[in-house]
Amino acid sequence: MATKKKNKLKVIPLGGMEEIGKNMTVFEYGENIIVVDCGLAFPEDEMLGIDLVIPDVTYLEKNAEKVRGIVLTHGHEDHIGALPYVLKRLPVPVYGTELTLALVENKLVEHDMAGKADLRIVKQGQTIQLGPFKVEFIRATHSIADAVSLAIDTPVGMVFHTGDFKIDQTPIEGEPMDLARIAELGKKGILLLMSDSTNVERPGYTMSERVVGDTFDSIFRGAKSRIIVATFASNIHRIQQVLNSAVKYGRKVALCGRSMINVVTTAIRLGYLSFPEDTLIDIDRIKRFKPEELVIITTGSQGEPMSALSRIASSSHKKVEINEGDLVIISASPIPGNEKMVYNVINELFKKGAEVIYDALTDIHVSGHARQEELKLMHRLTKPKFFVPAHGEYRHLKMHAKLAASLGMSEKNIFTMSNGKVLELTSRSAKIAGTVQSGSVLVDGLGVGDVGEIVLRDRKILSEDGLIIVVATIDSVGNQMADLEIISRGFVYVKESEELIEEVKNLAREALVKAVSRRGTNWASIRNAIKDELNTFLYKKTKRRPMIIPIIVEVQPQGMQRLESVRSPELPM
Amino acid sequence: MATKKKNKLKVIPLGGMEEIGKNMTVFEYGENIIVVDCGLAFPEDEMLGIDLVIPDVTYLEKNAEKVRGIVLTHGHEDHIGALPYVLKRLPVPVYGTELTLALVENKLVEHDMAGKADLRIVKQGQTIQLGPFKVEFIRATHSIADAVSLAIDTPVGMVFHTGDFKIDQTPIEGEPMDLARIAELGKKGILLLMSDSTNVERPGYTMSERVVGDTFDSIFRGAKSRIIVATFASNIHRIQQVLNSAVKYGRKVALCGRSMINVVTTAIRLGYLSFPEDTLIDIDRIKRFKPEELVIITTGSQGEPMSALSRIASSSHKKVEINEGDLVIISASPIPGNEKMVYNVINELFKKGAEVIYDALTDIHVSGHARQEELKLMHRLTKPKFFVPAHGEYRHLKMHAKLAASLGMSEKNIFTMSNGKVLELTSRSAKIAGTVQSGSVLVDGLGVGDVGEIVLRDRKILSEDGLIIVVATIDSVGNQMADLEIISRGFVYVKESEELIEEVKNLAREALVKAVSRRGTNWASIRNAIKDELNTFLYKKTKRRPMIIPIIVEVQPQGMQRLESVRSPELPM
Repeated sequence: MATKKKNKLKVIPLGGMEEIGKNMTVFEYGENIIVVDCGLAFPEDEMLGIDLVIPDVTYLEKNAEKVRGIVLTHGHEDHIGALPYVLKRLPVPVYGTELTLALVENKLVEHDMAGKADLRIVKQGQTIQLGPFKVEFIRATHSIADAVSLAIDTPVGMVFHTGDFKIDQTPIEGEPMDLARIAELGKKGILLLMSDSTNVERPGYTMSERVVGDTFDSIFRGAKSRIIVATFASNIHRIQQVLNSAVKYGRKVALCGRSMINVVTTAIRLGYLSFPEDTLIDIDRIKRFKPEELVIITTGSQGEPMSALSRIASSSHKKVEINEGDLVIISASPIPGNEKMVYNVINELFKKGAEVIYDALTDIHVSGHARQEELKLMHRLTKPKFFVPAHGEYRHLKMHAKLAASLGMSEKNIFTMSNGKVLELTSRSAKIAGTVQSGSVLVDGLGVGDVGEIVLRDRKILSEDGLIIVVATIDSVGNQMADLEIISRGFVYVKESEELIEEVKNLAREALVKAVSRRGTNWASIRNAIKDELNTFLYKKTKRRPMIIPIIVEVQPQGMQRLESVRSPELPM
Repeated sequence: MATKKKNKLKVIPLGGMEEIGKNMTVFEYGENIIVVDCGLAFPEDEMLGIDLVIPDVTYLEKNAEKVRGIVLTHGHEDHIGALPYVLKRLPVPVYGTELTLALVENKLVEHDMAGKADLRIVKQGQTIQLGPFKVEFIRATHSIADAVSLAIDTPVGMVFHTGDFKIDQTPIEGEPMDLARIAELGKKGILLLMSDSTNVERPGYTMSERVVGDTFDSIFRGAKSRIIVATFASNIHRIQQVLNSAVKYGRKVALCGRSMINVVTTAIRLGYLSFPEDTLIDIDRIKRFKPEELVIITTGSQGEPMSALSRIASSSHKKVEINEGDLVIISASPIPGNEKMVYNVINELFKKGAEVIYDALTDIHVSGHARQEELKLMHRLTKPKFFVPAHGEYRHLKMHAKLAASLGMSEKNIFTMSNGKVLELTSRSAKIAGTVQSGSVLVDGLGVGDVGEIVLRDRKILSEDGLIIVVATIDSVGNQMADLEIISRGFVYVKESEELIEEVKNLAREALVKAVSRRGTNWASIRNAIKDELNTFLYKKTKRRPMIIPIIVEVQPQGMQRLESVRSPELPM
């Protein structure tokens, strides 16, 4: 027991600090680790060609034998999206509520990992024991059903991790957030609060999800045409409200978009959606109903170019086309960075003759994250000794720290953390003690982590000004064995720039001749000479900097003969 | 006179319809054309590497002898930015107010065209005659000084072109918008109204520029640290208000950013800014003042990576660095598409220890465009027979058309136009009558229009998955004269993927051998065979589609000898 007393609790965010996305936090005590969430992030603009970003979990791999499990707060991508990648390297049990794990299982199926993970369902209100950690799942309200906050009882004290939350007093399904239990824990004493910071910039309260239902209701009441609602597939409560209004006004509902169909099917199977059995119809049957008898719920509320709504808008969807008078409701706000895509889709829909209702015009969306007054309430109820603002960009964390201080918390008890920083806690103290490896692993197609800075830098150069390839064919003593080949892509129309390409060829030839005469057959130095010459010329001539790739092929004196032998007629084809 | 009666007025937007940017409208009557505005647009996300976009003015070039001049409404880039390009091809007189033309002259200097254009100053309230057109410059209020609406008297009737406007009853400098004159024109009868649609989605009124001054004042009053204000260089009134607060609270002002210095210098020279002479100090002298004695006004309010504020935030600015406690005010809203860049800069500033005040938190910016109630007032005052919503994406134009209809206008008198469409008007009728060439010309470095769809498509492929070059060296009968060269860029780390590249090489070699044996030396078909083989293999292996560039070099049997000859020692270097 003596050694146990000396142990400290380490809290190590591996993602989610100074960023929105890839949420993942490590709790370590002695020989035991639990991990809260395992999310992905979407690539930044400069991460050209990258599909998604996951946390660097080297620290967990090095301590694999300690990891007792991964505990999930809810089923959003930024909390579960990295699981298929992480579980391959770290096959540990995963704990979450029923819907959360069903969404995880859907993801695993997509990665050919169906049934390969150890997924353990925990109900809201239940407590599990993982090594020295007692983890209580506390009902939370958020823009997805079955979300929880976590009360993690550790040997040094209680940690309260809010997960993503808003305090919705009138949620669509089930009970409100279990504030009574949180207050009780607060009274007993909470050592550390980690709390969602996403909406800390916004004063007041986030409106209840129910107000969107009222808006739907008033829109549906007056509508005489077909209604198409785009929203997040995971927002089961939003979808329930569309279903409610559809039922009320005698409309059938069809689903559109792969993830919409997957998630809704899962939610129905688990009983998270309720409606009369004949409400849902297959998308193939929509032609049999009059416009005023139909609602289509679709993905694509962020204007993603390959999503169902984008394809509908651009008339490239196989099953749904926009008819004059269709009413399209985009029940979502553009996530920063997606604005242009969303507006492009809205413009296209208008052009096709649809009426479009979107966030700029009506209260057709509410956030799933707590605003300032809700955050203050969380602080007041939990009354933590220490506080770590979580789930936010730097400005959010900073402002949440200020908000905590404005409630009377001592600034030395507030820790604004970066990913990889280690917060070390005893029952009475907390301090930053070191750093572990952390960072972003880029996923590009099947490649995980094989695209790094150099590749991205090259992609950036190529994306801006294209490339020019110069192939010189030389024998081992420097005789040119073929005329230079100049190939360009993404630079200029070759047809319109024949003259320019001819100039490039001449310059490259001169540079080659000069370099060979000066430096013999030092290929690297010849390549550099060609590159420098063309860079200077092209920048002066075009103010562009295409990537210049000089290739020098050294011809074998006698040839390699292999092709010829294959070509001999006596060989069978 | 008989022929004159038959003439119709043609109104042809060459830019600004279904887009925000490159505003340009042609008014044609018989043998006479005037052009209103000549703006640029910023490139769409998919226009990789493009610097800016200008209107296609082929129609004007073909009718060059008819063009009497270009008339400018104000000095924003989306109204004057294409002038340096267009004036090269169409050297016609340019009419505008004093500040507008001074900003044009600044642009011309940057393009080495100083003094080469025929710029003619027109005062607010003045009227000019251009062929059969009488153009009256009417004082307007907007987020730049010296803006005008245009009343264009034509042989078929009066056209009222609002330009960009808001109805600011308490503008910072000078008189309010000349609503009395507009009402007078409306009473006389306006045939066609063309009106700004940018803010048609927003209900109510746009707040007066003056409220921002009040916000500055309350911030400056309480501030004990250095203040850095980022805003648009062209927003002279905003800058005046910063100067006012600075003077009031005893602070010196330094300017930062090339365009800020240029525009403010011009505005001072022309008398558009007023302040005590010793207020402005050179940026090199800021170290001599205490933080509480200083304000820095800088460019970069959109988070542009090369702007002064971005460089200040990333500690790469030569003259200004962020000190703990600096107060940074970002007095602008992110233009759609710029949100992420702006937030990145804000996060960086917070990390450096600055306090940052931005739009999400305080009323620190107002728009320069009229909201719904102002637009309605404009309609009520002008009472036009026909209406063309202008300056907006499709959804804005559509909504503005609806707004006009809601005021009682007949829908058949409202024309929602696209660029290139011709609206033909008589004194009693209006109809769409054909289309002229229009579109976007892409400017990339010094190239104007040399980057088109193929180049952009190539850049997109290159940006996402990079490229692989395969060089095969073969003699004229198909003997391979050197081993294959495989070069990749922007695809994978070559070091970590040696095995993959080796596989690519083997596959390419097999494809080459097979193709030569089947098809002989048909180079095109050999190249396609290699491309197909590698595409399939790489997509299966990596789920990526790099651009594959097979190059086949045919070696001359005897070599070309030229390099050798240069290398001979007897030749002079």
